[in-house]
Amino acid sequence: MARSNSSVTHYVRYEQGGAVSYGILKGKNIQPIEGDLFGAREPSGDKVALGDVTLLYPCEPAQVLAVGLNYKSHLGDKEPPANPEIFYKPPTALQHPGGNIVIPPDAKDVHYEAEFVIVIGKTTSKVSVEEAPDYILGYTCGNDVSDRNWQNGTQGDKKDIQWWRAKGSDTFAPLGPSIAVGGNYSKSWIRLRLNGKTRQKQRISDLLFGAEEIVSFVSQYMTLAPGDVIYTGTPGTTKPMKAGDVVEVEVDGIGVLKNPVVQG
Amino acid sequence: MARSNSSVTHYVRYEQGGAVSYGILKGKNIQPIEGDLFGAREPSGDKVALGDVTLLYPCEPAQVLAVGLNYKSHLGDKEPPANPEIFYKPPTALQHPGGNIVIPPDAKDVHYEAEFVIVIGKTTSKVSVEEAPDYILGYTCGNDVSDRNWQNGTQGDKKDIQWWRAKGSDTFAPLGPSIAVGGNYSKSWIRLRLNGKTRQKQRISDLLFGAEEIVSFVSQYMTLAPGDVIYTGTPGTTKPMKAGDVVEVEVDGIGVLKNPVVQG
Repeated sequence: MARSNSSVTHYVRYEQGGAVSYGILKGKNIQPIEGDLFGAREPSGDKVALGDVTLLYPCEPAQVLAVGLNYKSHLGDKEPPANPEIFYKPPTALQHPGGNIVIPPDAKDVHYEAEFVIVIGKTTSKVSVEEAPDYILGYTCGNDVSDRNWQNGTQGDKKDIQWWRAKGSDTFAPLGPSIAVGGNYSKSWIRLRLNGKTRQKQRISDLLFGAEEIVSFVSQYMTLAPGDVIYTGTPGTTKPMKAGDVVEVEVDGIGVLKNPVVQG
Repeated sequence: MARSNSSVTHYVRYEQGGAVSYGILKGKNIQPIEGDLFGAREPSGDKVALGDVTLLYPCEPAQVLAVGLNYKSHLGDKEPPANPEIFYKPPTALQHPGGNIVIPPDAKDVHYEAEFVIVIGKTTSKVSVEEAPDYILGYTCGNDVSDRNWQNGTQGDKKDIQWWRAKGSDTFAPLGPSIAVGGNYSKSWIRLRLNGKTRQKQRISDLLFGAEEIVSFVSQYMTLAPGDVIYTGTPGTTKPMKAGDVVEVEVDGIGVLKNPVVQG
């Protein structure tokens, strides 16, 4: 099902023996690179086996943004927004591929949200939709984990005024496994599997606001930096997760982001 | 009006000749210190004159949080919240003492908000109210600049779902001038002056949730790091600002945060 596109490079960030490096994923191996993703990227040193390293979220964003209501299938009876509806997730919420999603002790309705994620490549301020592609490094997968009770009062509690803990509790932002640079994903499917069963499935081309429109809009108000990420919204409907579940987000041609769920 | 408290140290961050340093404010001079605020803090080198440096926001937070509805005088007809109502401002919104508050071209109702700001001193996760003081380095002044149209639709536009640009546009988070370490500010007044006239005035002790309760509550959900800041909420009512205005936030015993307003 994965798209084959030989012009795409998959960058990963990984830990091995206490050292953190960036590299290029090639099958079951990683070719380390010199430096990071945002300067010159030169292969350097010997390949390492994927099985010998721990993959980390693939960049280190200073800002994690996200978009709400960005697929028709997720709107329910709501009107499509006139512009991208942006919110923040704190970088402290980032979680590595394979890392636990921890349900906070008093959370009552924690859902998955499969998302296609933009990775910013350059300092971005007040760029047009036409200029935006120059500022996007690539794309990865994300899970915009959300407590619907804190977000919407689904379990009878008064909802929070803002979504800070609903969307921003520690481990609520799994990201990765790789940043795909050089491909076009408009025809890719995004899928979410809960314990192996597909629960969300949509074409990336069904996004109401595409990556370029989102980046241009955000950049009119705030300056984005290399490595910042924007989760672009989730399709369809979502369900709660519980301890023991395993949740996977896959975008064809990018990879699979898999995380177990535990009770905090 | 400023409280005199000889056990208080005022730390500043400043730029001189392209180099950024931390130091201790002593009258019209700064005593440079070795390292930063979060390790050993030893005086180092010769004093520099305050007039010869540019003050910067006094720490470099990875996270900027804020509290809504945290003074009775700001509630209007709203019920007091059952717990602190938290939201995020992005660190990209930080502005230095003396730096311009830039009104975005399409913003219609940009208000000041004088705030007392907590500076976190250590990595903070799941601490009790009683433990919280150990995790607070000190306090500074902040202006939680807010576009009421994007926040509440005050100028007839549909309000945004979340407050991202209402509270997070570039320059919407002036912070400083110093971090006061070692004092107690419960009896201090916080004041806002617009073009020299006092527009907000309240005792810090009127906060509905004090610093320790806020830090403890936030830390149940997200891990805070040294240098992170939490704006604690604004008192009373606020008014719009326009290009040419000068806005000052003062907390007795901490200092005056002064910023001019310009049109973007």
